Amino acid sequence: MALIFHERVGLDGRRISPFSWRIRYALAHKKIDAEVVPTRFADVGRIRALSNQHFVPIIEHNGQVVHDSWSIACYLEDHFADRPSLFGGAIGRGASRLVNDWADSVLAATMRQHIYGDFIWCIDPGDRAYFRGSREAVLGMTLETYCAERDAMLPALWGACAPLERTLSKQAFLAGDSPAYVDYVVFSVFQWARIGSPRDAFADAAKLAATRDWRARMVALYDGLGDRFPLYPAERSGPDGRTTEQVKT
Amino acid sequence: MALIFHERVGLDGRRISPFSWRIRYALAHKKIDAEVVPTRFADVGRIRALSNQHFVPIIEHNGQVVHDSWSIACYLEDHFADRPSLFGGAIGRGASRLVNDWADSVLAATMRQHIYGDFIWCIDPGDRAYFRGSREAVLGMTLETYCAERDAMLPALWGACAPLERTLSKQAFLAGDSPAYVDYVVFSVFQWARIGSPRDAFADAAKLAATRDWRARMVALYDGLGDRFPLYPAERSGPDGRTTEQVKT
Repeated sequence: MALIFHERVGLDGRRISPFSWRIRYALAHKKIDAEVVPTRFADVGRIRALSNQHFVPIIEHNGQVVHDSWSIACYLEDHFADRPSLFGGAIGRGASRLVNDWADSVLAATMRQHIYGDFIWCIDPGDRAYFRGSREAVLGMTLETYCAERDAMLPALWGACAPLERTLSKQAFLAGDSPAYVDYVVFSVFQWARIGSPRDAFADAAKLAATRDWRARMVALYDGLGDRFPLYPAERSGPDGRTTEQVKT
Repeated sequence: MALIFHERVGLDGRRISPFSWRIRYALAHKKIDAEVVPTRFADVGRIRALSNQHFVPIIEHNGQVVHDSWSIACYLEDHFADRPSLFGGAIGRGASRLVNDWADSVLAATMRQHIYGDFIWCIDPGDRAYFRGSREAVLGMTLETYCAERDAMLPALWGACAPLERTLSKQAFLAGDSPAYVDYVVFSVFQWARIGSPRDAFADAAKLAATRDWRARMVALYDGLGDRFPLYPAERSGPDGRTTEQVKT
């Protein structure tokens, strides 16, 4: 039975989730053909029934249901052990988990301030009200207010990437000569930004040239996997999810 | 011929360098007996003659001279391949380099603001004028001014450690179930702070309990290696290196 991959999608099939992207790259790395189930936020009923929680991605394989991208990566590594390794052994797995935690708690947390105000337009129109409401409740402000000072926050974003630049000035990938899960995890956040905003927050980062080159190499992997789906929409259209009233006017 | 390890020392044999500490742990990990050459900043002539540069640590082995802690770790891994591995293979090595670069460019850079004003007193009295002058030239202010707002900077330090806490809440060491070079690199910065300041900047960090526990496990490794040398001196005495005039008064 084919592996089933429940993957987050947005407007017109856009792949909008960094967590789903890292699994998509991991599947490509291991040459696993998956049956993809595009999953909107509105599909939460199916996800809950399947996994008793609401996060995506999820995989189903041989009767097992696995959620949480790190757990999925470990599952793939352990159950497809004859395929190219994502971690390269126990120490690599341990260190990859630290990089995973850094990518989520530092890099993605910094990145979202640069994209959230744009990102809403990449989301399926039917999901926007949910996305906006849930995120603004956490942030305590509108997405647009949250991102209003993003130009002033560029140095913080670039500074957070300084370790990447150091490493990528000395080796082609974060995992060394060839890419592995550490690359997919970190790249997934850059890919989220590529799709989630029309602005390249790194275009003017003079000290991140090696990181930009690596990003381009990551996009090109697996027959241009990073460009297989639509990037930021040319037009912002449809309800923006701000309020029902605003949508009606 | 025994491996020779030129290791940075301070006041009364204190081990004051995070770069030397990571190599000391790496040597213990690989069970390599080394002949240690304690090295003060004043010994720069010997270091330059040996390696054509002025940084420590340095190792000498089979006629080769290797400097830069990352290069030394790679040398040990490659030339003592039958001993326990520091990286666990190519992917682990790649990821360890990223953690190494994070530890230096983020963690150590944040940590030093919490210890530099105290640290001067751990340095050999004959080295203090050099240390103070070289560091203050880079900082553009005195060590004491640099650290004056350190209480206000505690949240930034703790925030920088958030990825560590996430990982160490789920596994005993950064490398997984057992320690490896990623642990030594990150711990070396904590160890620098343990020795370089009487204040434990993490004592009140409510959200870093797993990181503190890991720090204690790291100290205890290899028969308590982290406590083998003196910690912060009980008294601050001797010239502080500020100016010759102040020393004389």
